[in-house]
Amino acid sequence: MARYKVILAYDGTEFKGFQRQAGKSTARTVQNTFESALREIGWSGEAILSAGRTDAGVHASGQVISFDLEWKHGEAELAAALNANLPADVAVREVSEALEGFHPRYDAVSRRYCYRIFTDPIRDPQRERFAWRIWPPVDGGLLEATAGAIIGSHDFRAFGSAPHAGGTTVRRVFKAEWCSKESELVFEIQANAFLYRMVRKLVGYQVEIGQGKLELQAMKERLQDQCADLVRNIAPPHGLSLEAVEYVR
Amino acid sequence: MARYKVILAYDGTEFKGFQRQAGKSTARTVQNTFESALREIGWSGEAILSAGRTDAGVHASGQVISFDLEWKHGEAELAAALNANLPADVAVREVSEALEGFHPRYDAVSRRYCYRIFTDPIRDPQRERFAWRIWPPVDGGLLEATAGAIIGSHDFRAFGSAPHAGGTTVRRVFKAEWCSKESELVFEIQANAFLYRMVRKLVGYQVEIGQGKLELQAMKERLQDQCADLVRNIAPPHGLSLEAVEYVR
Repeated sequence: MARYKVILAYDGTEFKGFQRQAGKSTARTVQNTFESALREIGWSGEAILSAGRTDAGVHASGQVISFDLEWKHGEAELAAALNANLPADVAVREVSEALEGFHPRYDAVSRRYCYRIFTDPIRDPQRERFAWRIWPPVDGGLLEATAGAIIGSHDFRAFGSAPHAGGTTVRRVFKAEWCSKESELVFEIQANAFLYRMVRKLVGYQVEIGQGKLELQAMKERLQDQCADLVRNIAPPHGLSLEAVEYVR
Repeated sequence: MARYKVILAYDGTEFKGFQRQAGKSTARTVQNTFESALREIGWSGEAILSAGRTDAGVHASGQVISFDLEWKHGEAELAAALNANLPADVAVREVSEALEGFHPRYDAVSRRYCYRIFTDPIRDPQRERFAWRIWPPVDGGLLEATAGAIIGSHDFRAFGSAPHAGGTTVRRVFKAEWCSKESELVFEIQANAFLYRMVRKLVGYQVEIGQGKLELQAMKERLQDQCADLVRNIAPPHGLSLEAVEYVR
């Protein structure tokens, strides 16, 4: 029996999120789907471990999961065997043996997400699966300035709740920037950890600023004690993707 | 009553092709779906006209269709009314009034398609919806050289059949080139018209050459009389998109 670490990619559109839901164990979640594939090759565990839950409709190219398995062949063979049992919208990208006791969530030192937007007044089916269409257009310079205000250690309680009641809402953001890629604007954010729906709320709020509906100053105020009401702006799930989870080794 | 020209975009994944199938009028085709939306706003015609059928799984960002409609409001209002009645995977991108008797297929002077590929040994759910994953990698220089051989007027009977038995298989290709975009290779081809499955067969054959399984010379021979057996290589539909249809005015 060995512990394996697996990098997982999925198109979240047709999943009811990553995690199995209590009382709805038959819902099509990434976890349920992956565990079924794992059982096909002899796994008899109770639940896989993951770096983080993603909401319904959120994608991933670098989700990390872990499980114990008795496997006599190599890592590439394990990846191939799992991929043969997984549906088209989820795939194992990488398999490696982990140290005993490795935990994808507790051992992670940071996570990186991308959020894609594009501006267009009319629906565009080929682009809207993985990006949020917004209108009116945003001012790219304002987006950049707003992202700059996010970098560093802040109390993000205006942008999400802690996973456990009473837990800290302070998070350390290492990177937050908007890049222009082809016809899209991509927000890349890396932090030690994230609050519930934090990225989507940060994006929703930044877009309001970029469209001139809020002042740039509003972002700074939301990160200060005196004005930390929970923001209501939330960007839709389909623009978001969990890109990577980093470990010390 | 006026004739309207509409530019249509769709994600072809969940459609059984563009055209309504004889005997299967309830199959989910783009035509059936669009005609239902049109009936919701008072249309009572029998069938819309289109620039071309696309196969099951093929996408479009610039399909052109036409129909006659009694409509008292503007073109933008017509686009909005149709989009409100269409599902998420198909959208009206543009509406304009056309001359009486305009026919999107017979009046077209050229069509432009894109075919996207990327090289990766492992499945990638976020990229494979709109691009064909190939492995082993291709030689980009060979692809470019192969595309060059396609340009001009040739008898393409090795790469598809004519829409009507006994029809000419000569087509005039104005443009055929491979561009590198982000991590993808995109084949762009513009011709006066295309044979059935011509783009997918041209791509399938070029990839064989790019992977070194066939000589570059093979493409030139297939376009000559003495060696025009129908090629069996066919790229899958999901990498293909009808990008535009051009008219004289």
